[in-house]
Amino acid sequence: MTAATTRPGGRTARVRAAVLQATADALIEHGFDRLDLADVARRALVGKTTVYRRWGTVAALVADLLSDMAEQSVPRTETGTLAGDLRANARLVQRTLTDPRQGPLFRAVIVAATCDPRAAEALHRFYAIRIAEWSPCVTRATARGDLPPGTDPGEVIRAVSAPLYYRLLISGDPLDEAAADRAAAAALAAARAGAYTAAGSAPGAPNA
Amino acid sequence: MTAATTRPGGRTARVRAAVLQATADALIEHGFDRLDLADVARRALVGKTTVYRRWGTVAALVADLLSDMAEQSVPRTETGTLAGDLRANARLVQRTLTDPRQGPLFRAVIVAATCDPRAAEALHRFYAIRIAEWSPCVTRATARGDLPPGTDPGEVIRAVSAPLYYRLLISGDPLDEAAADRAAAAALAAARAGAYTAAGSAPGAPNA
Repeated sequence: MTAATTRPGGRTARVRAAVLQATADALIEHGFDRLDLADVARRALVGKTTVYRRWGTVAALVADLLSDMAEQSVPRTETGTLAGDLRANARLVQRTLTDPRQGPLFRAVIVAATCDPRAAEALHRFYAIRIAEWSPCVTRATARGDLPPGTDPGEVIRAVSAPLYYRLLISGDPLDEAAADRAAAAALAAARAGAYTAAGSAPGAPNA
Repeated sequence: MTAATTRPGGRTARVRAAVLQATADALIEHGFDRLDLADVARRALVGKTTVYRRWGTVAALVADLLSDMAEQSVPRTETGTLAGDLRANARLVQRTLTDPRQGPLFRAVIVAATCDPRAAEALHRFYAIRIAEWSPCVTRATARGDLPPGTDPGEVIRAVSAPLYYRLLISGDPLDEAAADRAAAAALAAARAGAYTAAGSAPGAPNA
């Protein structure tokens, strides 16, 4: 889930990589509210005009960074069991959010999304891609009969992440491996009980 | 969960009420990054010096607003069943986060908490109070034998909220009543399965 520093491509691709790396560095250091195009250009050793012409606004920079993060983000782990896969997902999210670089970066892009609709759209797209990447483990478990028919895979994957983001942004409770394992176990238990089928959330449903 | 506009007290209390109301109005209109002490004083019809002397920083204003929101926040609903109580909690959170005033206000104080440790502490305290307010429904259900012994009430209440904040801040998925009911049903199913007992998150636990 990191912005790559080296990759193939011509001058345009190299400029983009340098500018996005500088954007990430600036966000990690100062957060979104102090992100500045001229500062990004300086850090990237790229002409200010290039950055203004190509991106124009800080929100556009953040949106492009998020597209890049989605392209570069790591594939899912396959452990052989749904419980193992969900735990691997939870631990990846937990490690990312507590990483000294990735944690502040994610916080900054989430803040950007609350301030700007273009950044919000890019953030939603980033998470839609991450959720689609992990959904097959749920789809396969449902096909094997490990989960009730009609289980919504995206709901299960989002349920694994939600308590971890809640700790990061809302409650401030520790974001440790135990929290990750508990989030995975809770999502699995709720999925097994049918909470993520279309009927599972109805007020009259057996689990409601 | 709103800042009150009228309440008893002397001049000091009236000034505080006016300033906190103005802070909330400014946050709803412009967000945390454009919150400004002089603007708040102007909106509150209070001398700028008073606001600077008494609060000093925008983070201190937000922290005091959050203390006030915690004091004024609504008591829990008692429906007679744990399923009903959790659903009432989920729907209260969902209505608050989608309310045209409260929604932007919560987004702004959450952003403030990512930018300033004092605001973060106040936000965590606010949620600790809300979670403590709702925890007795879980404690009583556990005592009745509706949930496994040792269920952590705070974990259950946080689990109800987490998917709703995730939709608000991360995925952008609709934050409707169906999402609230699903969050409540999933938290209940996971709690029944033992995911919120001390053993429930261990990798080797039956549900893990």
